Amino acid sequence: MRVILIIGDGMADRPIKELGGKTPLQVTSTPSMDEVARTGVNGVMDSIAPGIPPGSDTAHLTILGYDPYKIYEGRGAFEALGAGLKVKPGDVAFRGNFATVDDSLTVLDRRAGRIREGAEELAEALNGLKLDPFPEVQVILKNTVEHRCAVIFRGPHLSRMVSDTDPHESDHKINEAKPLDDSSEALRTSSIVNFFTRNSRMILEKHPMNAERRSKGLLPANAILLRGAGVIPEVRPITDIYGIKALVVAGGALYKGVCNSVGMDSINVPGATGNYATDSEAKAKSAVENLPKYDFILVHIKGTDSASHDSDLGKKIMMIEKVDKLVGHLLKNTDPDEVFIAITSDHTTSTDSGEHTGDPVPVSIKGPNVRVDSVQSYSETDCAQGGLGRIRGSDLMPILMDLVGKSIMFGE
Amino acid sequence: MRVILIIGDGMADRPIKELGGKTPLQVTSTPSMDEVARTGVNGVMDSIAPGIPPGSDTAHLTILGYDPYKIYEGRGAFEALGAGLKVKPGDVAFRGNFATVDDSLTVLDRRAGRIREGAEELAEALNGLKLDPFPEVQVILKNTVEHRCAVIFRGPHLSRMVSDTDPHESDHKINEAKPLDDSSEALRTSSIVNFFTRNSRMILEKHPMNAERRSKGLLPANAILLRGAGVIPEVRPITDIYGIKALVVAGGALYKGVCNSVGMDSINVPGATGNYATDSEAKAKSAVENLPKYDFILVHIKGTDSASHDSDLGKKIMMIEKVDKLVGHLLKNTDPDEVFIAITSDHTTSTDSGEHTGDPVPVSIKGPNVRVDSVQSYSETDCAQGGLGRIRGSDLMPILMDLVGKSIMFGE
Repeated sequence: MRVILIIGDGMADRPIKELGGKTPLQVTSTPSMDEVARTGVNGVMDSIAPGIPPGSDTAHLTILGYDPYKIYEGRGAFEALGAGLKVKPGDVAFRGNFATVDDSLTVLDRRAGRIREGAEELAEALNGLKLDPFPEVQVILKNTVEHRCAVIFRGPHLSRMVSDTDPHESDHKINEAKPLDDSSEALRTSSIVNFFTRNSRMILEKHPMNAERRSKGLLPANAILLRGAGVIPEVRPITDIYGIKALVVAGGALYKGVCNSVGMDSINVPGATGNYATDSEAKAKSAVENLPKYDFILVHIKGTDSASHDSDLGKKIMMIEKVDKLVGHLLKNTDPDEVFIAITSDHTTSTDSGEHTGDPVPVSIKGPNVRVDSVQSYSETDCAQGGLGRIRGSDLMPILMDLVGKSIMFGE
Repeated sequence: MRVILIIGDGMADRPIKELGGKTPLQVTSTPSMDEVARTGVNGVMDSIAPGIPPGSDTAHLTILGYDPYKIYEGRGAFEALGAGLKVKPGDVAFRGNFATVDDSLTVLDRRAGRIREGAEELAEALNGLKLDPFPEVQVILKNTVEHRCAVIFRGPHLSRMVSDTDPHESDHKINEAKPLDDSSEALRTSSIVNFFTRNSRMILEKHPMNAERRSKGLLPANAILLRGAGVIPEVRPITDIYGIKALVVAGGALYKGVCNSVGMDSINVPGATGNYATDSEAKAKSAVENLPKYDFILVHIKGTDSASHDSDLGKKIMMIEKVDKLVGHLLKNTDPDEVFIAITSDHTTSTDSGEHTGDPVPVSIKGPNVRVDSVQSYSETDCAQGGLGRIRGSDLMPILMDLVGKSIMFGE
């Protein structure tokens, strides 16, 4: 028996006035998700704990069964892993942006006009960059999507306890990285990062690609902004804990990275973009195709969260419909006596406020021998009436693995 | 957005035979609390954990978001704080009673005839008392209500690990304080406390106020009984954790003390007595008046608990009606788009047994964008059907702070 877990990122919501005090999940037509709820067991889940808004990284770690309070060490390393870079223990990794700055290092555009073409070439010019005062440090830099890149600093005595250089808004200067604790490692790493900022800026400023961009009236990508320093947590892989093969199907680098960090495979699905245009049916097909090879497949859809962050109710409803179609495809193309289908969110994202909130998310699990309850549709309030009650994110993997006979008894 | 949290102390109950197997909350007419339940999200809450009867002090600590298993160090310091005394780290504080004893130190009346007049003067005679063998120890003593007082021992190397001198019933001798662990501090503190018992008795015995009482046929207040040694926990203030201003409106010293210890302000509301006669409408008015200045206001009503301790069903119902009127005043006089109203108890108190029990208490939260469920009235059994499910006391503050946008995301 196998499990497909569908995570609609930030799909859960708070009631919205324009929807007559209902949530998007309550008003959107979701026949396939409702079928899972109606024929399954349901509940609500606090990824971290009641009232605590989870980040995307910590939420996925806990849903995969890990305690983020014990193992979480920043986001950057997951992003780098998800971008296809190898991240070794001790590496400090960042999320980076190509940006446009003026001579005073004031940020004019945090995304360098959402640069697409040429970003890869600029990244290549910085990959392997030598930082003269720190010859023992290796810089690894890879362009991911548009203006985004992953940056790894590799070498001895580095620390993730350094602040962002990204000011997080334009019209502010690039920040100096500062140590966030009293260790010599943090101080040393902040010096390295600040040297990188200056050195990379000089190289980018003179790069022919930027001369070309200027001549076309485009903003030059003449600086790198860094944020979210992280170290890869060393954990016992999920595949080892449960003796399973596990796969993630996702567009966004972060989700692949988190799953990779706990031993899951990831594949690139053409059309799985991590944004509104994502081809959710292609993801469903890929999950079905790979099912014979895996015990556990996590299918992640990002757009539901993005829509709420953009406070775009129409897009949120459209993305929920996409998730529902994906679930529909899975229901049609998997054996109900063999495959468990579970649906949840990693956290609530409020379309009103545009922020993650600490409200619990609905969870529904359909499959052989689950204790079917009386819940009729998949929503925040309906699932709260279900037989699972209120669980924690860290309960979900044990519950799913127990259903497929992969759990480990404690005691005799 | 702001929160008013109403705590009906021991308001939750067990079903009672004379009420046809219903609880006081189920049979009492509570239109305003029912309105909160009907238009809000509901659940049940274990302040500490299922089946664990909380004390008033530990229950309030956990409801304010602290883990009492980690920080609780006795009740005395909260009482002293709530009585308006400054309690410093290292101080050991007790709850005290003026009592009447005979020459053999046998307690004739634990409350010295519920002394009112003169108690303040007697307390003054003991405040600053010198304990000859312990010149480095300062005694701070303040009369609070009737026969009650707060006593602080201040100085180096004190420990709260000493037993009560209060025998807790009459016709028993005053107890010798005994060390409750093997530390030299506990042994030393027990000697100090026992010396205080003897020395204070001599001063009180000879005090003119007691000669006057005897001449009037009143019991002399000629000894101090100590109980509940406590040290103030050093915690990060709630105001700092959430970046809020917080106020408690309560009659009882303990509740003010607990709230003060976590950084909350308290005010004295005329008529808020902490007993059956308390003017609950004055408390509601005070909460409304102070709302512009505070993000979080806790309104505490003690009488519901006292009624159960007295096994007085009529008074319990009367006090529940008072709480409902208080809630009604708040509903009428606050902006529903701005103010969250939450109602709960700190613990269940059984009117049958007169004791705190470990049953969960109902909780209802009304306010903008809460996930309204189908619960129609505020009671132990109705709220158990609600969308919050079963939460812990320590979940309540994170949930409330998340609703008003004051929560802190964990992860990115």
